[in-house]
Amino acid sequence: MHLIIDGYGGDPRRLADLELARALLDRVPLEIGMAKIAPPYVCRYEGAKPGDWGISGFVLIAESHLSVHTFPDRGLLWADIFSCKSFDADRLVEAVREAFSLQEARVTLLGRGLEYSEELTPTATRRASP
Amino acid sequence: MHLIIDGYGGDPRRLADLELARALLDRVPLEIGMAKIAPPYVCRYEGAKPGDWGISGFVLIAESHLSVHTFPDRGLLWADIFSCKSFDADRLVEAVREAFSLQEARVTLLGRGLEYSEELTPTATRRASP
Repeated sequence: MHLIIDGYGGDPRRLADLELARALLDRVPLEIGMAKIAPPYVCRYEGAKPGDWGISGFVLIAESHLSVHTFPDRGLLWADIFSCKSFDADRLVEAVREAFSLQEARVTLLGRGLEYSEELTPTATRRASP
Repeated sequence: MHLIIDGYGGDPRRLADLELARALLDRVPLEIGMAKIAPPYVCRYEGAKPGDWGISGFVLIAESHLSVHTFPDRGLLWADIFSCKSFDADRLVEAVREAFSLQEARVTLLGRGLEYSEELTPTATRRASP
């Protein structure tokens, strides 16, 4: 499944904190029972226009990934969590909301990939979408 | 905007080709007018169950990313392209379809992020969604 979080009203200092993003990408997979297959990659982006800068990061999990992109000057964040396995979407939304002190998080949940997971892991625990 | 490609019936040899995935992630940003901010990261994943293996990769673009995950034994692929700027979705779908010889590509296009891009680049060329 694919969880999309569009975050608004975040704390600019937190959204600009590269180490905070790295720590989030490093710990969240374990919290939702997934295994990283590479360490997180995080970098600071600086565009040509004022305000066009932020933190981008990525971590690969088994056939899955988490990504974050922030725009500190706008208080904005975009996060994606895609996995062929079911996971606790509410927990992830809360982890991201708390990490960046978001005032609003618009959440989209897509079911993609789960049909394959069910064949591979027929006994996997599933949860209802929020 | 966020382009989601769920690919079926792909060529297992191509889906298992790490260098093919790396080359795709390396060249596609340029083809759609975007700048990489880091080289592609690609790796092979081997799960515990038969058939649970494949190639995973991503590349960070300015406040954006491309990712691919493949399951060669199933002919499956999941790709994502997220950007705060508009891009040629049809061209990307074709590039991915051709690279992995997909028989079917289910495409989802989300508008997220574009409201920010419009403020930053008011003269950016926009195209209609397919």
